[in-house]
Amino acid sequence: MSKGLPKRSEDYSAWYNELVQKADLAENSPVRGCMVIKPYGYTIWEKMQRALDDMFKETGHTNAYFPLFIPKSFLSKEASHVEGFAKECAVVTHYRLKNAPDGSGVIVDPEAKLTEELIVRPTSETVIWSTYKNWIQSYRDLPVLVNQWANVVRWEMRTRLFLRTTEFLWQEGHTAHATADEAVAETKQMLEVYATFAEEWMALPVVRGVKTANERFAGAEDTYCIEALMQDGKALQAGTSHFLGQNFAKAFDVQYTSKEGKLDYVWGTSWGVSTRLMGALIMAHSDDEGLVLPPKLAPIQVVIVPIFKGAEQLATITEKIQPLLKELKSKGISVKFDNRDGNSPGWKFAEYELKGVPVRVAIGPRDLENGTAEVARRDTKEKKVYSMENLASQIEGLLTDIQQNIYQKAQSFRTANTTKVETYEEFKQILDEKPGFVLAHWDGTSETEERIKEETKATIRCIPLDSPAEEGKCIVTGKPSSRRVLFARAY
Amino acid sequence: MSKGLPKRSEDYSAWYNELVQKADLAENSPVRGCMVIKPYGYTIWEKMQRALDDMFKETGHTNAYFPLFIPKSFLSKEASHVEGFAKECAVVTHYRLKNAPDGSGVIVDPEAKLTEELIVRPTSETVIWSTYKNWIQSYRDLPVLVNQWANVVRWEMRTRLFLRTTEFLWQEGHTAHATADEAVAETKQMLEVYATFAEEWMALPVVRGVKTANERFAGAEDTYCIEALMQDGKALQAGTSHFLGQNFAKAFDVQYTSKEGKLDYVWGTSWGVSTRLMGALIMAHSDDEGLVLPPKLAPIQVVIVPIFKGAEQLATITEKIQPLLKELKSKGISVKFDNRDGNSPGWKFAEYELKGVPVRVAIGPRDLENGTAEVARRDTKEKKVYSMENLASQIEGLLTDIQQNIYQKAQSFRTANTTKVETYEEFKQILDEKPGFVLAHWDGTSETEERIKEETKATIRCIPLDSPAEEGKCIVTGKPSSRRVLFARAY
Repeated sequence: MSKGLPKRSEDYSAWYNELVQKADLAENSPVRGCMVIKPYGYTIWEKMQRALDDMFKETGHTNAYFPLFIPKSFLSKEASHVEGFAKECAVVTHYRLKNAPDGSGVIVDPEAKLTEELIVRPTSETVIWSTYKNWIQSYRDLPVLVNQWANVVRWEMRTRLFLRTTEFLWQEGHTAHATADEAVAETKQMLEVYATFAEEWMALPVVRGVKTANERFAGAEDTYCIEALMQDGKALQAGTSHFLGQNFAKAFDVQYTSKEGKLDYVWGTSWGVSTRLMGALIMAHSDDEGLVLPPKLAPIQVVIVPIFKGAEQLATITEKIQPLLKELKSKGISVKFDNRDGNSPGWKFAEYELKGVPVRVAIGPRDLENGTAEVARRDTKEKKVYSMENLASQIEGLLTDIQQNIYQKAQSFRTANTTKVETYEEFKQILDEKPGFVLAHWDGTSETEERIKEETKATIRCIPLDSPAEEGKCIVTGKPSSRRVLFARAY
Repeated sequence: MSKGLPKRSEDYSAWYNELVQKADLAENSPVRGCMVIKPYGYTIWEKMQRALDDMFKETGHTNAYFPLFIPKSFLSKEASHVEGFAKECAVVTHYRLKNAPDGSGVIVDPEAKLTEELIVRPTSETVIWSTYKNWIQSYRDLPVLVNQWANVVRWEMRTRLFLRTTEFLWQEGHTAHATADEAVAETKQMLEVYATFAEEWMALPVVRGVKTANERFAGAEDTYCIEALMQDGKALQAGTSHFLGQNFAKAFDVQYTSKEGKLDYVWGTSWGVSTRLMGALIMAHSDDEGLVLPPKLAPIQVVIVPIFKGAEQLATITEKIQPLLKELKSKGISVKFDNRDGNSPGWKFAEYELKGVPVRVAIGPRDLENGTAEVARRDTKEKKVYSMENLASQIEGLLTDIQQNIYQKAQSFRTANTTKVETYEEFKQILDEKPGFVLAHWDGTSETEERIKEETKATIRCIPLDSPAEEGKCIVTGKPSSRRVLFARAY
């Protein structure tokens, strides 16, 4: 297996694109901007889904399903919402094909025109809030805590596998509450769910923060987010949780009667993560040999490669490893025994490196004699010979170590690439010479934010929730600022 | 909780529609023909998904994801396929909205017209086979065993919740094989997976069979199906598995090199079940009081209703049932303790009957004195007083009994409503007086099949796989026939 991946240091972008395809994660489809998520990539996504879904259910949410299509008029009911999404919508106008009169194939039947055009959902606030109007009458009906796993479509001009595609998969939670406090608490709770998932499952340290008004979700009062740092020093927004205030309740007239008999609009939240997380996972940990996957999300956690000549040696090795296979499986560890003939051990080693399998066990004739096995870990590339006795437990411990080590490595990288700056000169210099997170003072105005974006391509990723109060001066205008905000160039 | 459901005997169709909505399974959405699957209904669907997905994986399949959109030209590459689907496609023609010049809202931007219109997938054979062309070169790449969970859209003029909706959820398996035999074996294997799921999980006996040429999937060589009988005597097709021959391989030029170095087209299958299964589940078992759910698919398997006056009695009951709750949960049984004040026990009883909770446990002050509980089963409406000692095990056994009993009941119903007829007169009489499955001889021609359909609205549901060889005469033409086929009016 020849990998031929570009090097990260030479062309990070080409490295990413090639890796996604060579590691069988995803590929471009014949449909512009839409991807095919291949079985190996989809298995990782399924593991993410399962972990997140369990966390949603533990926090009291249930899943439901709402229509793919949204009547055009719904979109315009919330003023800033339509502004945010109108320019990137796929529009269904007809519902039938017919044979072309000239025999050239099928054409759209002009007579089968829809009386109201339908939008393919770019997000589902509008159709869901129009439904909630019927579900909510009294305080007894609240809170409504619903999540949906679905595909959404945003017409993107420049697409990249997982990071920005016209169609993507995601989950979107939509909740309704009796009070603003409750809705804010829900917004923050789901941000914390996302942060925990990113850190504990993806081994990805994230900054929890709030977006500035400029970067807020179209229709939200406040957008909370988690931001992660990729190996090229660019930031990636990995999840958002929105406090919607009463905006959608007012747009769709969703009112409830309180215990005291008072009529009021309900308070809303929405929150989502998408297949974009796959991009973050790949870019945060992988190296020039291929994927590096945290064990908790790896489709194959352990691969066993026999080193043999002829059927007899293979049979001996196969027999010898049965107890190990059994014990690993009983521990819930997913293991693959690659007994294919025709590909050399070296070819297989390279393949599993490319695919990011966390632990590789190689067993050859000498190991059989000595009762040993060679164990290699993907993250550090360390190799060590272990006794076959008790090997399953050793491997179990190793998987835990690898999960932690990958996280630590990403965290060290982030620490090393987070810089506090005091002047705009310094700010620009850092972005060019050692890109990463930059913590700087900002005067709080959209004008300054936009000027910085225009001049440096860096945006305010968020106002970190743990950013301490600190008197300072805006790096651009010199106006007073009371805390630093987090800047970066971003995906 | 007042149910006010129509009676099945008076208006089966109204009973179904009301039940779906009152039991919180689904409702019509503001988008024509599209439904909202509500949390309670979606939880049942999730349980179905999980069971099916496990069975797909056990038989070697993995999941992947392909685009929602299909270029219009793809659809016409397989001649009979386009004929089958062209008339029911949603067509995306534009990708942007803009503000109307007269200020009336948003309109479709005529300048943002797609160069090639896109179809919202009605099924994914075309886009998947166009992808397989790149995945398959040699016999080493085969078989490809892939499944997709997705939403699909078929523009339906008359829709009914779950049974026929414009958008529905389903899974579609798409496999590619080196030989026809292997592909046929896969087709039959997946039919058997569906039949096993229907019988063991849904408690729904099904007839396994093959469709006639008239009823075949557009693009298939053979369509296998499972057919179930509903309580109103109508049949419901609950799943299909298609042997595609080399049709899609030829349409998309998918060839492979065999071990012997010969180039040949690959052989395909596709198979699917959808949210239609929800309709079958509801219609097969439920009664005039509401849903009857097989325990294996019930979101809540056991509900405990305390009968109390005042907080003190409730506290005593709550304390008393803790060991029961714990034991049930440790057995993996989903249990709800409904301690709401404000609704009477009778109201709660009616609600859980409507929702089809298999087992209800009621505990009142007298039970506390006696160390007992009243246990009611939903399927037979039997009530019995049990000792609290060992109650969890009793309930566990009861759930198994209920699962079996619901299946037995459906099977007895089917047996009682399956009739062999020898003449067309008898055939028509049965359909009018005691509708159900009808086994009759048929001459094997499409003409006769269509005449029967036109005159009686009954169709050939399938040629049952277990239909024994039997000399006979077609009920319409008197021509010779070698086995009976299965007729019914159908959903």
